[in-house]
Amino acid sequence: MVSKSQIKLITSLQQKKYRKLHGLFLAEGIKVIQELLRSNFVLHHLYVTDAVFDAVPKQKVSVVTEAELKKISALKTPNNCLALFEIPKGEEISEAGLIVALDDIRDPGNLGTILRLCDWFGIQNVVCSEETVDIYNPKVVQATMGSITRVNVIYTDLEVFLEKTQLPVYGTFMDGENIYKNNLPDNGVIVMGNEANGISPAIEKLCTQRIAIPRFGDLKQTESLNVATATAIILSEFRRSS
Amino acid sequence: MVSKSQIKLITSLQQKKYRKLHGLFLAEGIKVIQELLRSNFVLHHLYVTDAVFDAVPKQKVSVVTEAELKKISALKTPNNCLALFEIPKGEEISEAGLIVALDDIRDPGNLGTILRLCDWFGIQNVVCSEETVDIYNPKVVQATMGSITRVNVIYTDLEVFLEKTQLPVYGTFMDGENIYKNNLPDNGVIVMGNEANGISPAIEKLCTQRIAIPRFGDLKQTESLNVATATAIILSEFRRSS
Repeated sequence: MVSKSQIKLITSLQQKKYRKLHGLFLAEGIKVIQELLRSNFVLHHLYVTDAVFDAVPKQKVSVVTEAELKKISALKTPNNCLALFEIPKGEEISEAGLIVALDDIRDPGNLGTILRLCDWFGIQNVVCSEETVDIYNPKVVQATMGSITRVNVIYTDLEVFLEKTQLPVYGTFMDGENIYKNNLPDNGVIVMGNEANGISPAIEKLCTQRIAIPRFGDLKQTESLNVATATAIILSEFRRSS
Repeated sequence: MVSKSQIKLITSLQQKKYRKLHGLFLAEGIKVIQELLRSNFVLHHLYVTDAVFDAVPKQKVSVVTEAELKKISALKTPNNCLALFEIPKGEEISEAGLIVALDDIRDPGNLGTILRLCDWFGIQNVVCSEETVDIYNPKVVQATMGSITRVNVIYTDLEVFLEKTQLPVYGTFMDGENIYKNNLPDNGVIVMGNEANGISPAIEKLCTQRIAIPRFGDLKQTESLNVATATAIILSEFRRSS
């Protein structure tokens, strides 16, 4: 059973302001919920159509019908489980190793994919500009496939962060140096820019190293790479030599 | 003005069987339509809310209202233009250079992103299994951002294709050889597998080279890479040394 007030609370969590107000976020799907349960994230409540998870205290579980799940789900085609977790306090970023900095990434799927890539390549710290899509947006949580439990993400004024850092700051630009011919370090900040506009002028000024992914297709054409696939190539390049 | 029968025709093109029947596909958005107009694709008809394109013969253009565009669009938030183009006959695949083979890619966004990557890395031929999502699906056309005009895509029985080819066939597997330490050739077929199941057993048998993208994150965790980001890393690796 789900009460009307619960439905109201859960659906409100699709909006950032209510996530902030309640300190809770939504997770859907067995894989993501399982990974969150295994991590340090604190379960608030679990809604299931079947007995999917064993180890969860009974008072934190409600069995619901498929129709009820549909009402509270953020997905077009709901799974058989939905959970509310507490939003943790962000940890401090340690200024060591590789850090990914996101300058206004707006697409939830892109942010989720980038966090999955950071997880794969062992990058523990991600710094987002305040305008970057919220990591606790249900679509981001979904797209991370559980990586959200292993990557530390903070939101801050990216300009201030980059002004302060002692690390080299890498930005990708059309006129940058060929990434395949560069010696890439084990320590540094890698800035990825907005989907439509790339890295903003204020952030560009703070990039100490300009790199580029060479293009092998017809150079007269105006192709571009999606920011998530560009991140994949750049992180692979940074790690391959380490 | 759009007549009822036109609306019926255009919306039917969201389904593969009607695209096949009419030999037409839908394209939306200025960038994609512009690239198609500049290419060898043949325009059937263009619907615009404003005078967006100059060089199109008048008899092939209808000016429509925003409400009418919404009726014929496949997008939640329509642009200001929508075009129908003729589906061309697929060219023969030339057995030279690098070929990407797709074993049941189901997500339109993934196929679109992979075609964009092929375009960037100068890969002209893509062979898809019959079950791979249709390249003329409106979401794929959208996600390719115009790359559809520069990459030759055929649909065929992938098993038969791989049995016949003289080229080495590369497949990505957990137990494959470290891609960073492999000498990768300028000629070969690169197989990418289904989102959920990876490369199918029948296709796996036909892979002559087993490669892997090393993972740098916590190895006890069950992470994975999205097929489009894996394609990005692999194509970059093949091209960086060439």
